[in-house]
Amino acid sequence: MTRDDKFRQVAAEFGFDPEQEIKIGGKYTPVLIDGNTAYIAGQVPRVGEVVRFVGVVGESITLDDGRRAAAISTLRALTLIRNRCGTLDAIQAVPRITVFMRSAPDFTMQSEVADGASDVLYAVLGDAGVHTRTSVGVLQLPKGAAVEVDFIFSVRSV
Amino acid sequence: MTRDDKFRQVAAEFGFDPEQEIKIGGKYTPVLIDGNTAYIAGQVPRVGEVVRFVGVVGESITLDDGRRAAAISTLRALTLIRNRCGTLDAIQAVPRITVFMRSAPDFTMQSEVADGASDVLYAVLGDAGVHTRTSVGVLQLPKGAAVEVDFIFSVRSV
Amino acid sequence: MTRDDKFRQVAAEFGFDPEQEIKIGGKYTPVLIDGNTAYIAGQVPRVGEVVRFVGVVGESITLDDGRRAAAISTLRALTLIRNRCGTLDAIQAVPRITVFMRSAPDFTMQSEVADGASDVLYAVLGDAGVHTRTSVGVLQLPKGAAVEVDFIFSVRSV
Repeated sequence: MTRDDKFRQVAAEFGFDPEQEIKIGGKYTPVLIDGNTAYIAGQVPRVGEVVRFVGVVGESITLDDGRRAAAISTLRALTLIRNRCGTLDAIQAVPRITVFMRSAPDFTMQSEVADGASDVLYAVLGDAGVHTRTSVGVLQLPKGAAVEVDFIFSVRSV
Repeated sequence: MTRDDKFRQVAAEFGFDPEQEIKIGGKYTPVLIDGNTAYIAGQVPRVGEVVRFVGVVGESITLDDGRRAAAISTLRALTLIRNRCGTLDAIQAVPRITVFMRSAPDFTMQSEVADGASDVLYAVLGDAGVHTRTSVGVLQLPKGAAVEVDFIFSVRSV
Repeated sequence: MTRDDKFRQVAAEFGFDPEQEIKIGGKYTPVLIDGNTAYIAGQVPRVGEVVRFVGVVGESITLDDGRRAAAISTLRALTLIRNRCGTLDAIQAVPRITVFMRSAPDFTMQSEVADGASDVLYAVLGDAGVHTRTSVGVLQLPKGAAVEVDFIFSVRSV
């Protein structure tokens, strides 16, 4: 199965339409490729017009939903790369992801939430999904989203 | 009008002296260029010795002032690049900015605050000001600043 | 004295065994080298199995202990680079560190905490330890750690 097929399969598991338009709020670009490095703007778990998970992980959002939110943010990033590069085969590695999440004051499972992003990267990209990661519990995020993830991909011409 | 002229014009709109010395606290460098990539340390909205906007956006700091704070942090970054490279013409793109802001618990307009940084980048750099962006609401920032922004620029020899 | 010797000396000052295995939680890699750029995953001040500093800087964690926490996170990053590259002589520069720390609501000495990381970089690497830095006060971190630091190093083949 190709990466692009795996991507469609994983997207379907999350009820995420891989052909949807990725809407971006604000005055910036969602993807910028500089040399072989592709930067993706911070992605909240928006599906179509709606931010799917709004709230605080460890309070109104469960650990499992936090993980789903991180997965959807990652599916958005993969959609953006595929649309830009034509195929996910362009990805060579994922040098860095940073996973910000709204957190209850006593919630310390930031790594477990971030696993939702890591799992999608490995499921779709296999060994090329290897990445470094930083997970941080914050006070607020745009639109009250539970999770926001940004990405640096290493890409090649395909 | 050259970029350097536009920069002076935008700086004047914000009462920011583009010839001021950029003071940096702490034990690090404000700019590090590695190959074609210029990293700028996190900039708070300091003008001269004074952090102009101290407080929490959505509480003691209005949305408009949060946006101004992000603009001033960006003017500082542009000053640093111009001083290092001699001219803002050295900038090819702005792969990544991260906008941290102190936020009231129920304040969710982080993107709108970050637009203050984006607007300055476009006003001064035009198409080369295109960037990816991550906006995050945090609990505290150095000196109690309302906003802190860090930057990655793509630069070339000029 | 070589950098690797200095590293062992500074590690000893912090009671940090430079030969310890660096355990990483979660589903990711601690180091990813892309071209000449080495990304290090967010490091909490874990020594062996134990996170040494758990709590909020400015409340249950003093400024000095926050600084020690940042130092230990940095010793972990240097251990990871040395283990991967064989020697710290591989490091040419440190383009970016980001220092996240749990902060009391009124604690504004994020820069002074981050100096704990900067001091270790300079002590071990000298001029090559020069870096840009962003310091941010956040609500929570994985395992309740007081500090988390991530790094981008510029490395060369040695």
